[in-house]
Amino acid sequence: VSETPEPSPTADFPPVPAPDLEARNKAVERLDGLAIPAGSLGVLADLGLWLSSLQGLCPPRPPARARVVVIAADHGIAAAGVSAYSADVTARQVAATLEQSAPVAVTATVAGASVRVIDAGLDRDVALPGQDRYRVRRGSGRIDREDALTAAEVDEGLRIGRALADEEVDSGADLLVPASLGVGATTPASTLVAAVTGAEPVAVVGRGSGIGDDAWMRKATAIRDALRRGKPHVRDPRALLRAIGGADLAVLTGFLVQAALRKTPVLLDGLVVGAAGLLADDLAPGAHHWWLAAQQSPEPAMTLVLQHLQLVPVLDLQIRHGDGTGAVSVLPLVQAAARLLGETASAESSGITPVRAVTG
Amino acid sequence: VSETPEPSPTADFPPVPAPDLEARNKAVERLDGLAIPAGSLGVLADLGLWLSSLQGLCPPRPPARARVVVIAADHGIAAAGVSAYSADVTARQVAATLEQSAPVAVTATVAGASVRVIDAGLDRDVALPGQDRYRVRRGSGRIDREDALTAAEVDEGLRIGRALADEEVDSGADLLVPASLGVGATTPASTLVAAVTGAEPVAVVGRGSGIGDDAWMRKATAIRDALRRGKPHVRDPRALLRAIGGADLAVLTGFLVQAALRKTPVLLDGLVVGAAGLLADDLAPGAHHWWLAAQQSPEPAMTLVLQHLQLVPVLDLQIRHGDGTGAVSVLPLVQAAARLLGETASAESSGITPVRAVTG
Repeated sequence: VSETPEPSPTADFPPVPAPDLEARNKAVERLDGLAIPAGSLGVLADLGLWLSSLQGLCPPRPPARARVVVIAADHGIAAAGVSAYSADVTARQVAATLEQSAPVAVTATVAGASVRVIDAGLDRDVALPGQDRYRVRRGSGRIDREDALTAAEVDEGLRIGRALADEEVDSGADLLVPASLGVGATTPASTLVAAVTGAEPVAVVGRGSGIGDDAWMRKATAIRDALRRGKPHVRDPRALLRAIGGADLAVLTGFLVQAALRKTPVLLDGLVVGAAGLLADDLAPGAHHWWLAAQQSPEPAMTLVLQHLQLVPVLDLQIRHGDGTGAVSVLPLVQAAARLLGETASAESSGITPVRAVTG
Repeated sequence: VSETPEPSPTADFPPVPAPDLEARNKAVERLDGLAIPAGSLGVLADLGLWLSSLQGLCPPRPPARARVVVIAADHGIAAAGVSAYSADVTARQVAATLEQSAPVAVTATVAGASVRVIDAGLDRDVALPGQDRYRVRRGSGRIDREDALTAAEVDEGLRIGRALADEEVDSGADLLVPASLGVGATTPASTLVAAVTGAEPVAVVGRGSGIGDDAWMRKATAIRDALRRGKPHVRDPRALLRAIGGADLAVLTGFLVQAALRKTPVLLDGLVVGAAGLLADDLAPGAHHWWLAAQQSPEPAMTLVLQHLQLVPVLDLQIRHGDGTGAVSVLPLVQAAARLLGETASAESSGITPVRAVTG
């Protein structure tokens, strides 16, 4: 009996829907008719138009149920001394996030977002009951010497990520912030960025967890060695996730694909999320149209990600914490932008009408 | 009988207190001990330190009673066709602000700030009951040909501005956003900036209310002519307010001086507020230490203001509305920064401690 291989649940993605240009055009028209000096809202105008095109609505709805989904995982490469932290710190960061004392939890309170933490690949138990179904595996292989995941684990990670996005959208989330916690995670992320963009290893090595020069050298070496292992697969996102990725990266990639398929706006920030974004946009071309780059990060690899995806960051906050803090910091501006388009008086109704030709 | 001239109520300002460097140092120490990668909070770290030094507290209190005070006035120079709007629009902008449909009112809702509108020099009645005591005069002189105010009106404007800041601080405001509404107001503001910084007229002429090229030329001409009238007084802020200022500019100047004397943090934005800031810092040297430049404005004169005061804008929002929208947009970041310093777990208590040398 010949065995028919089961098709991968992620082999074929439906095409990514395009944002709604008609809604955007309506929003441009509405903006032009507001009782404000022409072009006076700057970035807030851009954000409002962006949200209109993604929601297919003019004026857009202010995001009321923004959701941060922090994907936590450990990385075998942490044993190479590439982080300022030892590997057991990931679990402590998860605990701090649950206790509302991690940066993203504190910032989310100000922005009115809620935070969910997922154990995608921690290598020890943490207080996250009922999460076995989101765990791809415990930890991941040391990517300078061995594969991070098996091919089956990659597919499982992608499936979990897609399921998570579905869960969130079905529960009413109207804006998603994928985020990451994991000691050593910027090393596979940087390697993936180098593999996809063709950058040299030294061009992607950042300070990550705030490492000093010695750890920086070790990180550069690890990335160089891992990149050699990844090079044969630069056109195959799944193979890259297997060879030089990690459980969190696979889950984030699936999450980003599915968020786009579900037409849900995403605030993109953090190098680990950014690396997953490169792969997601490869697997599902056009997915990046559903993402807003929240901020300019000091991680050099993140700059490469944004260039590759042709995304322009909204703010220059220089936040290097990957747990979603940067993206959540931008959320109040998105909310203000939506409300400005919806609630600002029109020139006609208020009589605040230019009497002279205005700039375009 | 010889008449002794009554001393001006604003002739002598007490010295501006310095921000509390000890509190700032404590905040730096606290930041270094947080359970976050070294240097990972970017701009949010800077904002927290800024607030600590101004409040003299570590950790700082998140601003809970931020107050926008919009100073409205008409300007004689509007008759020269320097704005996209006719002069009667100022009163309509005031009405829209009171009806919560002006940009600053909409944005303030998101940021949790409240908005107050003051008639400092409208040339017609608006629905602002009980405001006679804040009115310096109705309108102001056309500054390309005549003085904007009398010397007594300048002193009255400064006095009113100081009284307003006192009222707000005494009522519990813990962060102030001075703002401006007035058709034509960027013309005296730009002229004042040229006078104080020594810039050429064409270097300060911006698009203001969104003017086209013809109005831009008229504005440049008006500024050139007004600057000639102001030139003899470049070292005398009161004489500048008289010759080429306006009621709003005098009130804003007094407000900014007194806010600093009352040790109250100010978010500075908008060219009219910025021009008043130049004068306030001349009258009360060091006042600018109490101000945070909210954003990079597209008005060229505002860039000169920030350079002159050595203030670095927090964000690059390119908002050109002077009604406080830009400053209020930054407020959620200030609130997040304060909470991050106060509520983020310490490295020691959480066990999230670097095991390797970190970057400085």
